[in-house]
Amino acid sequence: MNGPQQPAPAADFAGWRSHQQAVVEQALSNWVPADSPARLGEAMRYAVLDGGKRLRPLLVLATAEALGGHAGAALRAACAVELIHAYSLVHDDMPCMDNDVLRRGKPTVHVQFGEAQALLAGDALQALAFELLIPGDGSLPAELSARLCRLLAQAAGADGMAGGQAVDLASVGVALDQPALEAMHRRKTGALLQASVGMGAATAAATRQQLADLAEYGACIGLAFQVVDDILDVTADSATLGKTAGKDAAADKPTFVSLMGLAPAQSYADAVLDRAHQALQRCGLKQADHLHALADWVGRRAS
Amino acid sequence: MNGPQQPAPAADFAGWRSHQQAVVEQALSNWVPADSPARLGEAMRYAVLDGGKRLRPLLVLATAEALGGHAGAALRAACAVELIHAYSLVHDDMPCMDNDVLRRGKPTVHVQFGEAQALLAGDALQALAFELLIPGDGSLPAELSARLCRLLAQAAGADGMAGGQAVDLASVGVALDQPALEAMHRRKTGALLQASVGMGAATAAATRQQLADLAEYGACIGLAFQVVDDILDVTADSATLGKTAGKDAAADKPTFVSLMGLAPAQSYADAVLDRAHQALQRCGLKQADHLHALADWVGRRAS
Repeated sequence: MNGPQQPAPAADFAGWRSHQQAVVEQALSNWVPADSPARLGEAMRYAVLDGGKRLRPLLVLATAEALGGHAGAALRAACAVELIHAYSLVHDDMPCMDNDVLRRGKPTVHVQFGEAQALLAGDALQALAFELLIPGDGSLPAELSARLCRLLAQAAGADGMAGGQAVDLASVGVALDQPALEAMHRRKTGALLQASVGMGAATAAATRQQLADLAEYGACIGLAFQVVDDILDVTADSATLGKTAGKDAAADKPTFVSLMGLAPAQSYADAVLDRAHQALQRCGLKQADHLHALADWVGRRAS
Repeated sequence: MNGPQQPAPAADFAGWRSHQQAVVEQALSNWVPADSPARLGEAMRYAVLDGGKRLRPLLVLATAEALGGHAGAALRAACAVELIHAYSLVHDDMPCMDNDVLRRGKPTVHVQFGEAQALLAGDALQALAFELLIPGDGSLPAELSARLCRLLAQAAGADGMAGGQAVDLASVGVALDQPALEAMHRRKTGALLQASVGMGAATAAATRQQLADLAEYGACIGLAFQVVDDILDVTADSATLGKTAGKDAAADKPTFVSLMGLAPAQSYADAVLDRAHQALQRCGLKQADHLHALADWVGRRAS
C-alpha cells in the first residue's frame, strides 16, 4: 500500500498491524468532524476514536495490499466499514437493545452523551460512512465509489447486519440449533467482516475465482470471530474485554458455547480458521501473509 | 419522465401529483423487502408505505422532469430520499427523542413493533436508501450513482439532517433568535428537501447557474415548509395532521410562530415562496409548472 509491495514475513505482523491501526486512527480523526453542532461531532468522535482492534479496517487493508489495490480507496473503505461498525455498537448498546454501559473500557455513548445524542450520532456515522466513499475531489473513480457503497450498504442493511440484529433480538430464550445460530451470525457480524474483505478486493483487479475464495475466507473469519467471541464471553473478565463479560448467558441468548460446550467450540473455531487459510491458499496471492496472520489473530485473541 | 415531455398546465398538478405518488408508492413497495427476517421487513414497510405526502420524491421527480433527466435514476433517487425521511421519522418518534405515539394517523413504529425493532428498522432503511441508488444491474451510470449517494449522504449526516436534529434537541427551552432558528431548520428539514431538488437536477445536464437557482428554490421550499409546519402545529388538530398537534409548544421548542406571531409567520412563508418562484423563473426551464405548483402546495397545505 505504501511504497513497493514486498512479501512481509509473519513475524512482521505485529508491526504492520500497529502501523495500520495508527494510519486508520489518524484518518478517522481527520474524517470524523469535531465541529458538528450541539456536541454531535463530539459524540461521533467518542464512538469511533481511540478504541477497538480495527479488525475490519485491517481486513480491508490486508486484502487490498495482497491484490495490489488502490491505496487511497482502501483507506477510505477501511474507515467507512469501521464507521458502520462503530455506529452499530452505539445503537446496540442503547437501553432498548442490549442496555450496556461499558464499551472499549469506557462508558457507552448513551451513558456519556444521553440516549438521543447516541441515536443521532449513530445515524450520522452511517451517513458519513457512505460520504467517505465518494470524495468530492475526484480522487476515486466513480465506478469504484459506487461498487464500494453497494457492498457496504448490502452488508449493513436488512440482509446483513441490521437483519442479523433483528434475528438476534428475536432469539432471546429461543433454542436455536447450530445452523440457525450460524445464519444469524452470518448476518449480524459476518456480513460486515466479509464485506471488509470484499471491499478490499474491489479496490483491485481480482479474478472471479479469487473473489469467491476471498468471500469464503471472509465468511470463515466472520464465523470464527463469533465462536471466539462466545468463548471469551464466558472465559474472560470485563476488564480484559473492555465490555461487559457474561452478558450473553445473562441475557439467555444462544451461543456456540451453550450449544456445543467450551472445548468443542474452541475446536470448531480452529477448524473454521483452517478453512480460512485453505481458501487463501487457493487464491494464489503473492502477499497473503497479513491475511493469514489476521485469521490467526481472530482465532487466538484474548479480548 | 413518462412519455414525451410536454408542458403541463397548472390545473393538471393534482393529477400529476396523484400519479407520481402512486408510482413512488409502487416502487417503494417493490424495493422495501417484505421478507427480511424477524419482522424487520414488516417494520420497514410499515414505516414507509401508505403514508405521507411524498413531498421529497415529488421534488426529485418534478426537477428531473423539468430538466429532462434520467427517469430511472430519478425514481430511485425519489425513493431513496423518502427512505431517509422515513427512517428519520421512526427515530425521531422514539421515546428518547420526541416520544410520539401517532404518525400519519397510525401508531408510531416503536409503539407497533417495539423500540429495538424501530431502531433497527430505521438503521436498515438508511442503508437501503444508498443501496437503491446503486442498482446491481448496471441500469444507472456509476458516475450518477456516486453523485446521488454523495448528495444524499451529505444531506442526511452531521452537516445536514442529523446535525439539525442535534441542534433541535439542544434548543428546548432556549431563546433562539430567527437566524439561529433558520440555521437549525436549514439542516434539520431543509437539507433533505434541498437535496431532493439537487438529486433531481443531478439526473440531468443542468448548467452551473441552473444548479444555483435550483438550490435557492430548494432552500426556500425547505424554509417555507418549516414555517408552515409551525403554523399548522398551532392551527390544525391531530386528526388533520395525522400526528400529534401542539407538540412544539408543549415541548417548549422555539418556532416561527412563537418568535414572530401567527399572522407574520404566514406572511413570511408567502414571501419565502415568492423567492422560490423567482428562483425558478431565473432557471429558464421549459417545463417548470410542477415545481411552481409544488411550492404553492407546500405553502398552502392543510396538514
